[in-house]
Amino acid sequence: MDERSDAKIRLYELVLENGRSSSPYVWRIRYALAHKGLPVESVPIGFTDIPAVFGGRFKTVPVIEHGDTRLAESWDIAEYIDQAFPDAAPLFAAPPERAMVRLFDAWFSGEILRKMFRAYILDVHDAARPEDRAYYRNSRETMLKGATLEEFPKDRAASLPALRDSLRPLRSHLSQHPFLGGVAPNYADYIALGAFQWVASVSTLPVLAPNDALRAWRDRGFELYGGLGRDPRMRPLFE
Amino acid sequence: MDERSDAKIRLYELVLENGRSSSPYVWRIRYALAHKGLPVESVPIGFTDIPAVFGGRFKTVPVIEHGDTRLAESWDIAEYIDQAFPDAAPLFAAPPERAMVRLFDAWFSGEILRKMFRAYILDVHDAARPEDRAYYRNSRETMLKGATLEEFPKDRAASLPALRDSLRPLRSHLSQHPFLGGVAPNYADYIALGAFQWVASVSTLPVLAPNDALRAWRDRGFELYGGLGRDPRMRPLFE
Repeated sequence: MDERSDAKIRLYELVLENGRSSSPYVWRIRYALAHKGLPVESVPIGFTDIPAVFGGRFKTVPVIEHGDTRLAESWDIAEYIDQAFPDAAPLFAAPPERAMVRLFDAWFSGEILRKMFRAYILDVHDAARPEDRAYYRNSRETMLKGATLEEFPKDRAASLPALRDSLRPLRSHLSQHPFLGGVAPNYADYIALGAFQWVASVSTLPVLAPNDALRAWRDRGFELYGGLGRDPRMRPLFE
Repeated sequence: MDERSDAKIRLYELVLENGRSSSPYVWRIRYALAHKGLPVESVPIGFTDIPAVFGGRFKTVPVIEHGDTRLAESWDIAEYIDQAFPDAAPLFAAPPERAMVRLFDAWFSGEILRKMFRAYILDVHDAARPEDRAYYRNSRETMLKGATLEEFPKDRAASLPALRDSLRPLRSHLSQHPFLGGVAPNYADYIALGAFQWVASVSTLPVLAPNDALRAWRDRGFELYGGLGRDPRMRPLFE
């Protein structure tokens, strides 16, 4: 192990009023660190802490600190920790796997996460720390070009069938494999599990039907690494 | 090399009236065999030859023969040739890559190919060997529950924007990598290239906009393996 490997990793996480880490991107890194068996010191912050904590250098979490390295962007962090800790279990066993997971991320973030963000935009506000809510509302309503969080989406329940339908490739794949990564979970699982962790942290409307075939995989995924994804504060994912 | 490796591979391919191999699934295997550098004897057949040639055992091509092995289903064939020729370049370098490509296939076939089949259902008929057309029409119109090939889809041009939009994850990925597989093409590229090979074989309506960012990748892909995908009989993919 080289010098970098001895340094402790600090992970800056976005937390809700109830203290739960909720960002789907932070959750990817929580799982990735657990996958590699790396100890981590968590630094919980809220939306409005970000400018001061990072001196304007980063606008989003996750951010990790490791020795002299300070890094944002979950994908870059995942690649970094895989390179910095070559003796720990690899996140990406080979470049083609990394490329394929990256392609999965392009689909999942563009198609699935985008729909989730629309459906749960008000729930995130309501679950945030009180001191973060005004900032969150202003920034999101600017993105929505004037619509209020309450107005948008007007009928989110009506958007759920399309979101559920978009998850078909996962169901098809998981009918043949226990994990997206095959016999064992890989970073694609963490991308998808992270999204469901986030939804389960804020949701006031279950995202999935009661008989959804994703349930067994969700159960396996949330049990990983000593039940890292289990938390009594979580809300139902299934109707 | 074991005994199996010495035997010649025969590949049964579906051909059009002009003799061109057109099935998107056969093209996956054409590329896979070229990737591994394996010589192959092509057996061109039409839709109506399938029952007699395979004695009812297989309903679709590709089918390969290799020694005593006769195998259908492109995914099974890809896995088979990878195992039967371990000394040739691997299609799947490791099980997680194979799982990720399989997941990509679930998305691509369910989302992209499905839309393409709808848009080009009449073009396939018109490009087929004359003796295959009545069979093709009957089988497809049964699937369409009574609509004729001419009626369905009523306005396929109107369906193209959604199809093009669905390809966003590929564009996003290819803005950072030369191939879906990363620095080198892998079976995910062959799945996607095979679909465009098929469309280019039959299309009377270009599937992509003239400025589509997929063009550079398409060019790279069609040039692979000595221009395996180049053919003067092909029709324009770009408006």
